[in-house]
Amino acid sequence: MTRANLLSRLRSAGVRNILVRNLISEFVGTFLLVFIGTCNVAQFHLGREKTTTWIGVNIGWGFAIMFSVMATAKLSGGHLNPAVSILFWSFGHLPGLWLVLYSVVQTAGAFLAAMCMYLYYYEAFDQYDSGIRAIAGPTGTAVVFCSYPAPYLGYFTPYLDQIIGTGILAYFLCVVIDEKNKVPKVWHPMIFGFLVMMIGTAFGMNLGYPINPARDLGPRLFSVFTHGSGVFSTPYPSYFLAPIIGPLVGALFGGWLYQVSLGMHIPDDAGTRELEEPIQEQEEKLLEKP
Amino acid sequence: MTRANLLSRLRSAGVRNILVRNLISEFVGTFLLVFIGTCNVAQFHLGREKTTTWIGVNIGWGFAIMFSVMATAKLSGGHLNPAVSILFWSFGHLPGLWLVLYSVVQTAGAFLAAMCMYLYYYEAFDQYDSGIRAIAGPTGTAVVFCSYPAPYLGYFTPYLDQIIGTGILAYFLCVVIDEKNKVPKVWHPMIFGFLVMMIGTAFGMNLGYPINPARDLGPRLFSVFTHGSGVFSTPYPSYFLAPIIGPLVGALFGGWLYQVSLGMHIPDDAGTRELEEPIQEQEEKLLEKP
Amino acid sequence: MTRANLLSRLRSAGVRNILVRNLISEFVGTFLLVFIGTCNVAQFHLGREKTTTWIGVNIGWGFAIMFSVMATAKLSGGHLNPAVSILFWSFGHLPGLWLVLYSVVQTAGAFLAAMCMYLYYYEAFDQYDSGIRAIAGPTGTAVVFCSYPAPYLGYFTPYLDQIIGTGILAYFLCVVIDEKNKVPKVWHPMIFGFLVMMIGTAFGMNLGYPINPARDLGPRLFSVFTHGSGVFSTPYPSYFLAPIIGPLVGALFGGWLYQVSLGMHIPDDAGTRELEEPIQEQEEKLLEKP
Amino acid sequence: MTRANLLSRLRSAGVRNILVRNLISEFVGTFLLVFIGTCNVAQFHLGREKTTTWIGVNIGWGFAIMFSVMATAKLSGGHLNPAVSILFWSFGHLPGLWLVLYSVVQTAGAFLAAMCMYLYYYEAFDQYDSGIRAIAGPTGTAVVFCSYPAPYLGYFTPYLDQIIGTGILAYFLCVVIDEKNKVPKVWHPMIFGFLVMMIGTAFGMNLGYPINPARDLGPRLFSVFTHGSGVFSTPYPSYFLAPIIGPLVGALFGGWLYQVSLGMHIPDDAGTRELEEPIQEQEEKLLEKP
Repeated sequence: MTRANLLSRLRSAGVRNILVRNLISEFVGTFLLVFIGTCNVAQFHLGREKTTTWIGVNIGWGFAIMFSVMATAKLSGGHLNPAVSILFWSFGHLPGLWLVLYSVVQTAGAFLAAMCMYLYYYEAFDQYDSGIRAIAGPTGTAVVFCSYPAPYLGYFTPYLDQIIGTGILAYFLCVVIDEKNKVPKVWHPMIFGFLVMMIGTAFGMNLGYPINPARDLGPRLFSVFTHGSGVFSTPYPSYFLAPIIGPLVGALFGGWLYQVSLGMHIPDDAGTRELEEPIQEQEEKLLEKP
Repeated sequence: MTRANLLSRLRSAGVRNILVRNLISEFVGTFLLVFIGTCNVAQFHLGREKTTTWIGVNIGWGFAIMFSVMATAKLSGGHLNPAVSILFWSFGHLPGLWLVLYSVVQTAGAFLAAMCMYLYYYEAFDQYDSGIRAIAGPTGTAVVFCSYPAPYLGYFTPYLDQIIGTGILAYFLCVVIDEKNKVPKVWHPMIFGFLVMMIGTAFGMNLGYPINPARDLGPRLFSVFTHGSGVFSTPYPSYFLAPIIGPLVGALFGGWLYQVSLGMHIPDDAGTRELEEPIQEQEEKLLEKP
Repeated sequence: MTRANLLSRLRSAGVRNILVRNLISEFVGTFLLVFIGTCNVAQFHLGREKTTTWIGVNIGWGFAIMFSVMATAKLSGGHLNPAVSILFWSFGHLPGLWLVLYSVVQTAGAFLAAMCMYLYYYEAFDQYDSGIRAIAGPTGTAVVFCSYPAPYLGYFTPYLDQIIGTGILAYFLCVVIDEKNKVPKVWHPMIFGFLVMMIGTAFGMNLGYPINPARDLGPRLFSVFTHGSGVFSTPYPSYFLAPIIGPLVGALFGGWLYQVSLGMHIPDDAGTRELEEPIQEQEEKLLEKP
Repeated sequence: MTRANLLSRLRSAGVRNILVRNLISEFVGTFLLVFIGTCNVAQFHLGREKTTTWIGVNIGWGFAIMFSVMATAKLSGGHLNPAVSILFWSFGHLPGLWLVLYSVVQTAGAFLAAMCMYLYYYEAFDQYDSGIRAIAGPTGTAVVFCSYPAPYLGYFTPYLDQIIGTGILAYFLCVVIDEKNKVPKVWHPMIFGFLVMMIGTAFGMNLGYPINPARDLGPRLFSVFTHGSGVFSTPYPSYFLAPIIGPLVGALFGGWLYQVSLGMHIPDDAGTRELEEPIQEQEEKLLEKP
């Protein structure tokens, strides 16, 4: 059998059950996203901000979204985030059971990603803390895995932070996928990447913009093995719930807010073509008849 | 009623009055733009430039424009700026009353945006100034809301600065929307984002490139509640007028300068409509139909 | 007469002589490019690198190219650079007289741009040097106008630098406009912007990548009025010739090198479709039949 | 003979033998990539990080990929990397002899690129180290040519690093070229550029992401002439093998991992070819035919 035949036969042997296929896709896609993303944070943090700066973190995470979505768009649609999945569930586009299964495999993918990141940068961790893992403090490295709140934040602010940050994500996600806005599908992955870059430059100071329960919980679970169970009680016992509950609430809030504030008012294309862009159409006509 | 039905019925219940719809769109769009933009500035300023650098401010504001315009383009055309609206009014594309109403809701959206930014970053403000709000000085935070002139500027320079900055904005806005230049509409939001990134890297040192009366006045009005009425008299009583009058004059200047300097000389498409096709055909070929 | 009529009539009164129209376009386009670009450098230099960093200079100049080319592409093709014009002359696409006239108006546009930049940032200059203009040294500002060599450079290196830098520009310019490479015209301005960003990150340390005789000579001429005739003899009398002669030679070198090294070997589309991408076609067929 | 005729005749005299043509293309493309890329690193390192920062290195290398691939895509497909070529060989798209020849000319192109970079920045080298070339230490400059491991790395980690980094490259390369993912060819060069930017922000701290045997070995060979044979034994004798063997293994690993983890599960297009059209139609509508 030639090599080309091998590839050809392999490609005809794929899973054909849609749910299984989608779960594979969400698992793999979230793995890719979180592996690249946490490696990016590791390079920033362990490199003591010398081999990346904050804008590098923003750009790197943005492209990680772009490529992970591009890789999985044709299979599962590239949610890679339970908050996105719950939004689609609320729109009636995803059965409840699928939402649960998606969330589980997304978190599992993120867990595995954290493990791989840790192996990849193992020696960089050792060089940073001389081999003694600490959660916080001058040699603390737990922030490479998952979010911890800035010291000035109160108890409820992390929830607010995640509701707003994920709300912005969900709001513009709905702008992009709303067919009335006519954004070609080929642009979607890049636009989602730009969206996350924007969120990082504006909503990253409080917690570091996790905006994704799987991205936060999966690596936090893994870091129990490396940093001990304190990762679930730092800086206070229930903090870890904020980047889980906040994004779920925020995605529902942002997604439906789009529908109510803008989406429902955009006229249908069908019979109302002439109503669609009256001001713009005037402009066009004017501009084209000099 | 299923969730999908709910969404579907909601979307069929939108406002159908064009003016009302457009006012909603301008209010919401300006809110989004200024909320994201001022959060970006807050992260830069309150983070003492550690969680964003100047290029992050430029990129963040640029993407804020991109996404806000994308969200509102199909409703109101996404002006989000009284200076843009006055330009379209001057072209005869917008009735005078609409211009006034647009400007009011744009400013109201920006006011609300400043309030939300303040709530979102409330604790970051407290951490920066230990809870005592100051307009300027080492713990000054008024610059997060709106523009203040660099200390070296004279009385008239802020007007000049805003006329030039908004002039550049309006000039290239007209380049992009002039159908003769054949920039597909799908590219517009991204290009407007790049345009504002460019303005930030070249015309940001004097005032910080407000180039939008609503973006400056709305948050300044809100900051009266947080920083006192001094925001309208710092560093001297009438400064606040410059980022209102300057952009309005600058947009008219830049937009018409485009028409006179380049736009009017581009040869008419009328008889050569087929010139438009080759570009499109090239694109199609490149979409690779084997 | 309504405002819309005014615009409409204005737009029907444009210049119809192609040479005159193109000269206007090259003058205006080079003005825009150099005005934005030198304002960007001013913000970098006069702001003592606090309101822009080097990457901001690269990105800002890149977008300045993108927007200036977009504005003038449909009139004169957007050369905005005598080095580009001489390349098109060498390809037989531009008469010799036009090349001379283009170069003159490009330089005049850059001269005017420097004047406007100086007025725009006049007070920032004063704040930087307390009102005493110096060419070099701790309060030197001549570098805002035009290029000066890094102190470590020998006599001939500036020529080499400009030949290489402009050669890269011309090489990839030819890649983009060669129809065999199938880059749609709508992408060209953005790609040229990315190209100049790339040149700035790789070939900017010696002279600051002028790569455009008009961009360098125009502002240098203007700076005689502000900094004295020393701008033509710093650091040694004939330096100013390097960013004039170098780019002209470099553009011819790079453009023809593309034709010889790659362009001439790309098969014609016409009768050799099957020869064009044998390897790629195999891939495609393989990939599309799983 | 007119100049236009000269160009026209030149372009009809290109090499028609496919293998020779492709070897020319791979040689030239790798030369361009490595010349621009190493000049970028030189500006970063010799400029003591003042005329570029790490994000500038990432962006510069990314655009170097974009433009080099764009230049050679229609001839050889733009591998420019033996690791990419071995992947295509493993897919049965490239004969074994071609793989060997491609790798040789790619390495030769990178060798020549290093020589040109050295000539271009010769004086900058001298200024950095006062004319005494050192491999490492405070005046060390060998890192401008090729990769050296961070001091904290163990013996096998460079292999792991290159397998992962090149694996990510190959994985997403396969995502992009898999027709089922419907990424138009016109986007490919830019997307490959973004991909390398992403890799630089996340996987650059250990070795500096060579991920290309030709890019590493070619300049290392040249640097024997400038820095002595120590470049093959620093920091230990066999290090230089890691950025050769690692990428070859990593590309095979990443490319096939894509096929197994995602590619093979994407449903077949065969009977649903019309699925491809909507995207295209959307694009067309957006090109605005009034």
